This record gives sequence, structure tokens and C-alpha cells, in this order.
Amino acid sequence: MEFQIEPAVAILSRTPATLNALLRDLPEPWLVRNEGPETWSPYDVVGHLIHGEETDWIPRAKIILEHGETRAFEPFDRVAMFEESKAKSIGQLLDTFAQLRAENLRELQAMNLTADLLDKRGHHPELGVVTLRQLLSTWVVHDLGHVRQIVRVMSKQYRDAVGPWRAYLSILEE
Amino acid sequence: MEFQIEPAVAILSRTPATLNALLRDLPEPWLVRNEGPETWSPYDVVGHLIHGEETDWIPRAKIILEHGETRAFEPFDRVAMFEESKAKSIGQLLDTFAQLRAENLRELQAMNLTADLLDKRGHHPELGVVTLRQLLSTWVVHDLGHVRQIVRVMSKQYRDAVGPWRAYLSILEE
Repeated sequence: MEFQIEPAVAILSRTPATLNALLRDLPEPWLVRNEGPETWSPYDVVGHLIHGEETDWIPRAKIILEHGETRAFEPFDRVAMFEESKAKSIGQLLDTFAQLRAENLRELQAMNLTADLLDKRGHHPELGVVTLRQLLSTWVVHDLGHVRQIVRVMSKQYRDAVGPWRAYLSILEE
Repeated sequence: MEFQIEPAVAILSRTPATLNALLRDLPEPWLVRNEGPETWSPYDVVGHLIHGEETDWIPRAKIILEHGETRAFEPFDRVAMFEESKAKSIGQLLDTFAQLRAENLRELQAMNLTADLLDKRGHHPELGVVTLRQLLSTWVVHDLGHVRQIVRVMSKQYRDAVGPWRAYLSILEE
């Protein structure tokens, strides 16, 4: 599929409700267990998504629109949430994510992005030249990738519990 | 984690709302595109989950409770939905899934499963001896695995659109 604003927003606008349905009020073990040392729990992932709303997607889109390739993006801190999420409940994190996402989608719509603007180029500190279209496509896939991560982490808590069915459940081997 | 009824039901009861938030009213290309020949679209996956509610989890639990190891499960038809879902909208499929899941969870609660009953053994036509506890754990992981499949299939529609970011998006390589 080619990137287009409307179908992309259709995904981006649904992610907070999807995570809310999946995670709110879930018994704590499902929320805080991870896949082992240096891996993330569902709770950690929601914090990471919040940090992305604050520092990654729309801020980078603005850098492309205002500075093009002349100013590189700030590097994204992938683990900032370990500090920022401290002492917050999953409900608070889900509310914050939903609010920030709604604000960012309003900002996105206000940009009135034309095909020409979507082709505008920016400078990624590691990847080099990227377009606004690619940045916004990545926002969508980043959401989906973290939903997949959350359900994978949850499923692994039952890796032993499923007994011989493990042979049929590829999610347990990822 | 050990299997326990309450945390398992916490997941099983949320899956219809999760899929509803993710998929209802989504632009059609996200719903019907798959990963290539012989692969499933998100639409196909919801049909498969419906078929599981009808023929797999609770029916098999009843076979274990009533017949133990003396009667093997009926083999599960993994692709029945290609016929059964025909001409139904995604909204209809989501409604059907939510209704069947709610009914099945009521049946599960009515079984009043004790630890002894959860240890009861059944006979899987391919895997051999399995327990009711393993069957119900597998129901949970099966849900999560298909949520992961749906978001993976959707993300792949943007495999090219993300440009150089593809290097950071492991979901595109699964």
C-alpha cells in the first residue's frame, strides 16, 4: 500500500482504544512480566509509546517541514519510560497516551499535508535521508509492532502452561 | 505463570473488544489484504476465531469433562472460515465473535472448575494426552497469537512505505 493520510490516521487513532481494551484493569502479572532481562513488559511498552508521542513523531514532522534536511532529528531515547513511568498506574499511562495521541493527530490534520509536503525530505541521524511520508508510515508500523510485542510478551507467560500445544503456537517461539 | 481461571478469563473476555477497537470500520484494504498466497487477512482471522468458539475450546473442554481420554477431540478445521465468512461484513463477524465468546465464558464459569477438574486428561488426535488446564491455557495464547498475526499482516502493507526505517522494524521481517 502507498501511504495516505486517511488510512494511516485510521490506524493511529485506534491504537489507544486497542491498548485500553487489551490492558486496562488486567491482573498485574500480565502487565509487569517481561520476556527476561533487558526486555519490556506491556507496562513498559505503553510508557515507550507515550515518550514517542512527546518526542518522536510530530516533533520530527515539524523539523522536516521547518528545516528539511538542514537539521537532523534529535535521537530518540528508546528507554526513557523506565524513569518517566515510575509510580504511574497502567490506567494513568493509557489515559496519557490517548490524550497525547489525540492532540498529535489534531496537529497532523492541521498541517494539511499535500503530496508535495509528504515528499519533503529530512535528515535522520543514523538512517540519512528520509521523507515525511516515510516518517508517518513508520509511526503506523511502530504502533502495530508494539501491539504485537505486548501480546507476544503476555503469551509467553503461558509458555509452559500450554503443554504439548506449544508445538502449534508460533508466537511462543518468536 | 501457572494457569488460573480468573487471569485467563481476564484475557479471553477482552479479546472481542480489542479486535473491535482495532478493526471495526477500518478502511477495507487494511482488512482484506494478506501476506501473500495461502495467508490470512485480518478479516480471515476473525472468521477463524469464530470457528474456534463454535467447534474448538468449549466443545473440547466438554469432551474432557464427559469422556476423559476415552474420546479423542474432533480435528479442528483451520480454514473453515473461508466458506463460513462469505459475504459477511467485518462488523457482523466482530459481533458474532463477541456474542459467542461471551456465551462460551458463561459456559466456562458454569463448569465451576476445581484444580482436580483442571488436571483432567483428554486425548488430542495428534498431540496425545493433554489436560483441561493446557487446553484453556492454549485458548488464551491462541487469542494473543491471532492478535499478533492481525497487526503483523497490517504492518506489512507498509513494508515499502517506511523506506529506510524498515531496518528498525522487526515486525516487517516476521
